[in-house]
Amino acid sequence: MDKHFYQALAFEKPPERPLVACNMVTSLDGKVTADGTQPKSLGSAFDLSTMGIIRSHFDAVLAGGNTIRLHPYYLGVPARLERGRQEKGLASQPLTVLLTRSGDLDPTSSLFTKAPRPPVIITSAQGAENLPVAIIEQAQIEVMENAIPQAILQLLQDKYQVQRLLVEGGPSVNYQFMQAKLLDELFLTLHPSLIGKRTDLGLSAGDQVLELPETIKLLSVNQHDDELFLRYRITW
Amino acid sequence: MDKHFYQALAFEKPPERPLVACNMVTSLDGKVTADGTQPKSLGSAFDLSTMGIIRSHFDAVLAGGNTIRLHPYYLGVPARLERGRQEKGLASQPLTVLLTRSGDLDPTSSLFTKAPRPPVIITSAQGAENLPVAIIEQAQIEVMENAIPQAILQLLQDKYQVQRLLVEGGPSVNYQFMQAKLLDELFLTLHPSLIGKRTDLGLSAGDQVLELPETIKLLSVNQHDDELFLRYRITW
Repeated sequence: MDKHFYQALAFEKPPERPLVACNMVTSLDGKVTADGTQPKSLGSAFDLSTMGIIRSHFDAVLAGGNTIRLHPYYLGVPARLERGRQEKGLASQPLTVLLTRSGDLDPTSSLFTKAPRPPVIITSAQGAENLPVAIIEQAQIEVMENAIPQAILQLLQDKYQVQRLLVEGGPSVNYQFMQAKLLDELFLTLHPSLIGKRTDLGLSAGDQVLELPETIKLLSVNQHDDELFLRYRITW
Repeated sequence: MDKHFYQALAFEKPPERPLVACNMVTSLDGKVTADGTQPKSLGSAFDLSTMGIIRSHFDAVLAGGNTIRLHPYYLGVPARLERGRQEKGLASQPLTVLLTRSGDLDPTSSLFTKAPRPPVIITSAQGAENLPVAIIEQAQIEVMENAIPQAILQLLQDKYQVQRLLVEGGPSVNYQFMQAKLLDELFLTLHPSLIGKRTDLGLSAGDQVLELPETIKLLSVNQHDDELFLRYRITW
């Protein structure tokens, strides 16, 4: 197999906190959903394998509750990438981190029943009460009333030794990291499709226009068929 | 000056109707506006000059009323590109075509006072009544109660000899051409910025998810600084 263009990546970790990257696939008109749900057509099989390769560089992968309810899978890497992680001194699988205020999660999903490592669930006191016993037994529950990105990074660094965190949405979660100026890199797959519906969301969705970063640098451009794989470094 | 990557372009005109392309610049999160208006930061000076070079290949450039009210300029090319157009057998300047149901346009804007050719205004009967006399004297008014893309193309081909039409927004106008399956090409500038506001629009905005085109082919990828210039061919 040819070497994937993301197989060897260098990262510049900030001194005080974990490095944070985001990986998303959008249509040409910037949408991550179609009719409110993620369409099967968005992102190719190659993009799916690329997602695994990007994850292979990270200690932890984080997603919000809506994203997990749509895709209830452990945010891990294929078994064939485990060895490469071990050789780099990483755990075989990244740690899955779930952000859910409500605690509305399905204990029968493979995310819990087949998890290679107990997922970390960051939730409110109310959310923790809502969590089914079967999840509490299989996950690490972290109660945080004000789960802002700064606090999440502190927790993940101090308690879980996370040095690199990958954020995989949804749009509100991505926005929070951007608004807090804590997003260092963006991996963007540009899928050759058009969604067109006004109410579908883009990769970042919040209430206000973000402040302008100091620079957004295009680190690499790779093409596979008609799909583009872009990597940006953001300095706030 | 180096040759611009869009200076020489070949197009595949459909046999029965004008070729239709769209040119837009979006942020990395797919937005064409920030807080509802187009920010100065979206698109570089190089992107602006690229817009002129793309226009230089077209007989006519069309925009909707909202877009024109935000940017009330003739949709033309810089004087230095006129000669190249003449050598290709095109008029010195593309024809500006405005789509406005309301007829709410400002007669004192340079779009009318300095127009190299009388713009065509496609509007409703009510819109035509609303148009200031100063505009009626300087423009070609076309009353069309149901200005669907098919009818617009027929009119522009039959009466104005348009063989290639460039659509420059806004998002609703772009969407109408996509929904009618009459968009053949997309020129997309990906500007290294993040907007983040949920309610800002992407390059296409309508009420329903678009039908899947047969293919969207990535024809070319060009980079200038951290900005990407993408050209796609769409087959419906």
